[in-house]
Amino acid sequence: MFFASDNGSGVPGAVLAALARVNEGPAPGYGADAAMAEVTDRLRAVFEAPKAEVFLIATGTAANAIAIASFCPPWGTVYCHDHAHIEEDECGAPEFYTGGAKLRRIPGNHGRMDPDALRAAIAATGQVGVHNAQRGMVSITETTEAGTVHGPAGVAELAGIARDFGLPVHMDGARFANALVSAGCTPAELTWKAGVDVLSFGGTKNGLMGVEALILFDPDRHAGKGWEIQLRRKRGGHLFSKHRYLSAQMLAYLEDDLWLDLAGRANAAAASLAAGLAQVPGARLVHPVQANAVFAAFPRVAHRRAQTAGARYYMWPFDQSLEGDGDAPLSCRLVCSWNTTGSEIAAFLDALRG
Amino acid sequence: MFFASDNGSGVPGAVLAALARVNEGPAPGYGADAAMAEVTDRLRAVFEAPKAEVFLIATGTAANAIAIASFCPPWGTVYCHDHAHIEEDECGAPEFYTGGAKLRRIPGNHGRMDPDALRAAIAATGQVGVHNAQRGMVSITETTEAGTVHGPAGVAELAGIARDFGLPVHMDGARFANALVSAGCTPAELTWKAGVDVLSFGGTKNGLMGVEALILFDPDRHAGKGWEIQLRRKRGGHLFSKHRYLSAQMLAYLEDDLWLDLAGRANAAAASLAAGLAQVPGARLVHPVQANAVFAAFPRVAHRRAQTAGARYYMWPFDQSLEGDGDAPLSCRLVCSWNTTGSEIAAFLDALRG
Amino acid sequence: MFFASDNGSGVPGAVLAALARVNEGPAPGYGADAAMAEVTDRLRAVFEAPKAEVFLIATGTAANAIAIASFCPPWGTVYCHDHAHIEEDECGAPEFYTGGAKLRRIPGNHGRMDPDALRAAIAATGQVGVHNAQRGMVSITETTEAGTVHGPAGVAELAGIARDFGLPVHMDGARFANALVSAGCTPAELTWKAGVDVLSFGGTKNGLMGVEALILFDPDRHAGKGWEIQLRRKRGGHLFSKHRYLSAQMLAYLEDDLWLDLAGRANAAAASLAAGLAQVPGARLVHPVQANAVFAAFPRVAHRRAQTAGARYYMWPFDQSLEGDGDAPLSCRLVCSWNTTGSEIAAFLDALRG
Amino acid sequence: MFFASDNGSGVPGAVLAALARVNEGPAPGYGADAAMAEVTDRLRAVFEAPKAEVFLIATGTAANAIAIASFCPPWGTVYCHDHAHIEEDECGAPEFYTGGAKLRRIPGNHGRMDPDALRAAIAATGQVGVHNAQRGMVSITETTEAGTVHGPAGVAELAGIARDFGLPVHMDGARFANALVSAGCTPAELTWKAGVDVLSFGGTKNGLMGVEALILFDPDRHAGKGWEIQLRRKRGGHLFSKHRYLSAQMLAYLEDDLWLDLAGRANAAAASLAAGLAQVPGARLVHPVQANAVFAAFPRVAHRRAQTAGARYYMWPFDQSLEGDGDAPLSCRLVCSWNTTGSEIAAFLDALRG
Repeated sequence: MFFASDNGSGVPGAVLAALARVNEGPAPGYGADAAMAEVTDRLRAVFEAPKAEVFLIATGTAANAIAIASFCPPWGTVYCHDHAHIEEDECGAPEFYTGGAKLRRIPGNHGRMDPDALRAAIAATGQVGVHNAQRGMVSITETTEAGTVHGPAGVAELAGIARDFGLPVHMDGARFANALVSAGCTPAELTWKAGVDVLSFGGTKNGLMGVEALILFDPDRHAGKGWEIQLRRKRGGHLFSKHRYLSAQMLAYLEDDLWLDLAGRANAAAASLAAGLAQVPGARLVHPVQANAVFAAFPRVAHRRAQTAGARYYMWPFDQSLEGDGDAPLSCRLVCSWNTTGSEIAAFLDALRG
Repeated sequence: MFFASDNGSGVPGAVLAALARVNEGPAPGYGADAAMAEVTDRLRAVFEAPKAEVFLIATGTAANAIAIASFCPPWGTVYCHDHAHIEEDECGAPEFYTGGAKLRRIPGNHGRMDPDALRAAIAATGQVGVHNAQRGMVSITETTEAGTVHGPAGVAELAGIARDFGLPVHMDGARFANALVSAGCTPAELTWKAGVDVLSFGGTKNGLMGVEALILFDPDRHAGKGWEIQLRRKRGGHLFSKHRYLSAQMLAYLEDDLWLDLAGRANAAAASLAAGLAQVPGARLVHPVQANAVFAAFPRVAHRRAQTAGARYYMWPFDQSLEGDGDAPLSCRLVCSWNTTGSEIAAFLDALRG
Repeated sequence: MFFASDNGSGVPGAVLAALARVNEGPAPGYGADAAMAEVTDRLRAVFEAPKAEVFLIATGTAANAIAIASFCPPWGTVYCHDHAHIEEDECGAPEFYTGGAKLRRIPGNHGRMDPDALRAAIAATGQVGVHNAQRGMVSITETTEAGTVHGPAGVAELAGIARDFGLPVHMDGARFANALVSAGCTPAELTWKAGVDVLSFGGTKNGLMGVEALILFDPDRHAGKGWEIQLRRKRGGHLFSKHRYLSAQMLAYLEDDLWLDLAGRANAAAASLAAGLAQVPGARLVHPVQANAVFAAFPRVAHRRAQTAGARYYMWPFDQSLEGDGDAPLSCRLVCSWNTTGSEIAAFLDALRG
Repeated sequence: MFFASDNGSGVPGAVLAALARVNEGPAPGYGADAAMAEVTDRLRAVFEAPKAEVFLIATGTAANAIAIASFCPPWGTVYCHDHAHIEEDECGAPEFYTGGAKLRRIPGNHGRMDPDALRAAIAATGQVGVHNAQRGMVSITETTEAGTVHGPAGVAELAGIARDFGLPVHMDGARFANALVSAGCTPAELTWKAGVDVLSFGGTKNGLMGVEALILFDPDRHAGKGWEIQLRRKRGGHLFSKHRYLSAQMLAYLEDDLWLDLAGRANAAAASLAAGLAQVPGARLVHPVQANAVFAAFPRVAHRRAQTAGARYYMWPFDQSLEGDGDAPLSCRLVCSWNTTGSEIAAFLDALRG
């Protein structure tokens, strides 16, 4: 009954096997390994972007920060959702990597920026010229932090607003696979065809030990950005000498669509969990369940039963207390993973019901 | 015949096994995994530093930069050897993490800062008060970039100069194990007993996939620095969600003194290679061979034979050309690894001799 | 009829005279001039803070940024009003000088942070430990950007909240003199006695060419901060070689309470203007008039008449257009200066009334 | 007998008069004042650069740092003389403004970078690709810190090396006027015609209170750089609200070639001083005297006599002591100013001779 985060799960055997396979013999470091060339080829094919440049980075925070710093100057403004990971959970990594850019929180329901609010915020930026922080870039989180999915149309709407102002678009795709499976579209449709310039393509939350791919879709349009990303990666201490172990993980991830398989399992588990919650008296969903996370509220007493039974998850927001009385429902986040089992879900629901 | 770098080698089976072992079941992220607690315990024991704080970081560049930024203000000066990794091979990571500190290159033979030059450089810093960059910290590389070892007395001499000026001391120990085996002293003697405040304890170059331990020996003396290191690690994107895979590697490294065993093998290989070179006509050592790297010069024709035979290594410095005539010896760097074999060495020496 | 800003006015003759007086003979640079020693003495007396350290800086943006960077780490959060100058009008200077701290906008009426909102925002910061930006410091603007004044009790309430969390307090006093005259208290009461640690004591908006004093009230409590401020000032390019010309301006400002006299005149002009507006049909005040600025709304047609007559001021917010029809009042900012004349005000009111 | 620095002198009456003149009436702030438009026109004419963009900045350190940051990325290398002001006397301002670029010290006699050393240093930068700091820009100081002048040919030689590598060229012209008068060429010949892209055109050391002009000669070639400079100036806190007082100083400086007249006087004083020193037993020049500074060595006893007589100047380097015995000459720096008098020089020479 571990629903604390999808980063609490281990990795599938195929990933371990890939590490063992790539371990043989010497290999050149820093991304010049043969496996990396194959990673690039495959991601170009997956995204129908034959010129795309691909850079592996071990953490999502670093992938986001390096991508953003490469597109937004120190005096720029990054528009993101009120509860975006880059704003709330990265201890200022984007500010650090950009040299002091501003993040502007855009409100919106269920983890999605409200398009009108986004447009208004961009329009209002820099009205007094040099005295203000300037317009910088837009960052969209897909899957959102609320477990919802924009889909191609939703991404295109937000990216279109960015385009209207000439701004580049980043996608934080820490849970990109979950969104893709949910949206039922192609990777290209969810990204560059919808207006995304640079993607943090997540692996870690979906079954890898620690690898994300930073993908620059159109280097011709963004001359010099690929090299800048490489310099920022190195300078940030994120260029691995034994790079083959990152490449191997990503290769295993892409092999036989493992990444889609893993995400599909996690999404299905969340759907099953949500369906079960519908049967729990007093429980309700806080956000639509569209990927692998369930945000739900239920009575304090049910929380106590679940946690006593050993369920692990976070109250969401954090500052709700299980102590005390009162029967107002308390909300929480339940994240399913590629290896969440039906029996875990059943046990959790049983505990809730008492 | 791979002598290009010790980061070109794979990892021993014990490391792969440890990854598989830790893969079972869910685990809390971000360093709260059980394996990390054990890593801390063991490193405290290894270094006889019962209060030491330990932070795992996946790359040496990041470990160095985070350590330095935590001790040196933006207006500080970092004194390091002319050819220190932090100066020459990290694309300005220390400058980035510190927010613009200056690195001051200190000359010295065989990779070691000349003590008099270090003292003079520190003394000369900040003579005009607020107009100058200020004194910051000293960074010692052990094993040096020239493959030599300071040993406890050498470290203590340099650290003592730092102490005379009230400056903290960092050790870049990317090849710490090689130095330790060479020096034949205890880990404590080579570090905090010699005056080192904070150590980048290398694992990657000595058989891990990508893990270094940042060790703060005396948190009582450096109040708040442990927390600052954690914030800088997170902010730099270096806090791993699935941290257990870093912990597992480091645990395997410490288990049964694997780290010392691996370093011992690499050092022995280098000694053997150096001995063999002594028999090669026209070959001479550029630096004393004290750890796992051999810097040697030999005739251009011998280089050509070796490279034709498939030997991989770097000319050192890089700008020497195998093209052209002339019989002046060309210098190179030959790095041995934990899995360098006697037959590789023999084949290389055979090729040199023609 | 110039009400665009108090920085649009010239300086009183006493300031020009002081520049001429200090011009004679050679003088040591960089703050070692005799006039600076006198400035420090006088400001210590004015603020009843005999140990205070004083640093002159030519612009308010720089004074604010240097003060904030000296108290808030790169991972810290600066709490300020939604429309604070440091957030809206400094192009990210605080982010630049701090190395990427976050500014958190606190709502509140009439330019003052709502105390409950401030307390809640601080409490909510850093709940997830190392993953979040941390608590940093509180910055209070006095006179506010809405032309209102906190007074000692208002400052103490906000500073007390900061103190409850152990946070330092900065005051942006670009219009400190106007607030002081309005509040009718002592300089100490409005600052350190109310909990302010460091003050940007404005001169430029109140009759100087370009000088602010950064005042650190209690160096004993903030060991090392004075020197840090000096280093940040130098490193930011804000230490003047011919410092005497800054000192001379500040001395003239303090001589015979010129600063209070100038602020009193500006405040009186604003009061007169506000009183006159009360007689203008359709006009109303947007904020209480407590210092030297009047925020007022009146019909579009009146705006047109005023501007045609040559009145200079900004619509506030900026994005209101005088074009078009409709009789909803449009709001604007009217700033009075030390040399705003009664006839200017009368002419303006005449124009409004048509 | 004040020879400590040319920034120890006051300003000519014309500068005070200009401040008084511009003081009348309201004026728009932040560079939109009428005087600034005239400054731009005049500097374009002076430099025969009709499209040049001009930005006033109050200190030389800031002008240098903003110029450099606008042309050199955080991972770039700035090549400058071993004793350049940007390296030795700005407390790391270039590192701060660039976000951590590296300054590379180039040796060379008499304050001028040795061309071969410059070429070799640039060529050696970035040999290991992403692992190294990259090539950035070249900064030439004219007049040098040794009081010598490159002249058009000297500048062109160094700038040509930069051009060979595609690097932009900055000139630190804190004493540009002194160099120009010495070289006897046109301003264009000493700058953009010789390959300079951006100039810190000094005013402060040559008779102004505190104004330098940052001049971007060819905005067409450097698209966007003018706006970037403006943003960096604002963000650095260097955009003056009451900008007219900077403009007025610079206008007075350019009026009737006052700047050349002042520099000519200072240079003539230095020449006279140098000639006088030639008659002092035991005295010798350390560097050729080509502008307004004299670097000379003479016996300790003569120093003592001069200082007892009230002469003010710095030992150069700083760490020489007048205490003790020994008759080895001690070296010093003697800087003349626009208002250094013949009688000061005579008195100083008399004191030396005893």
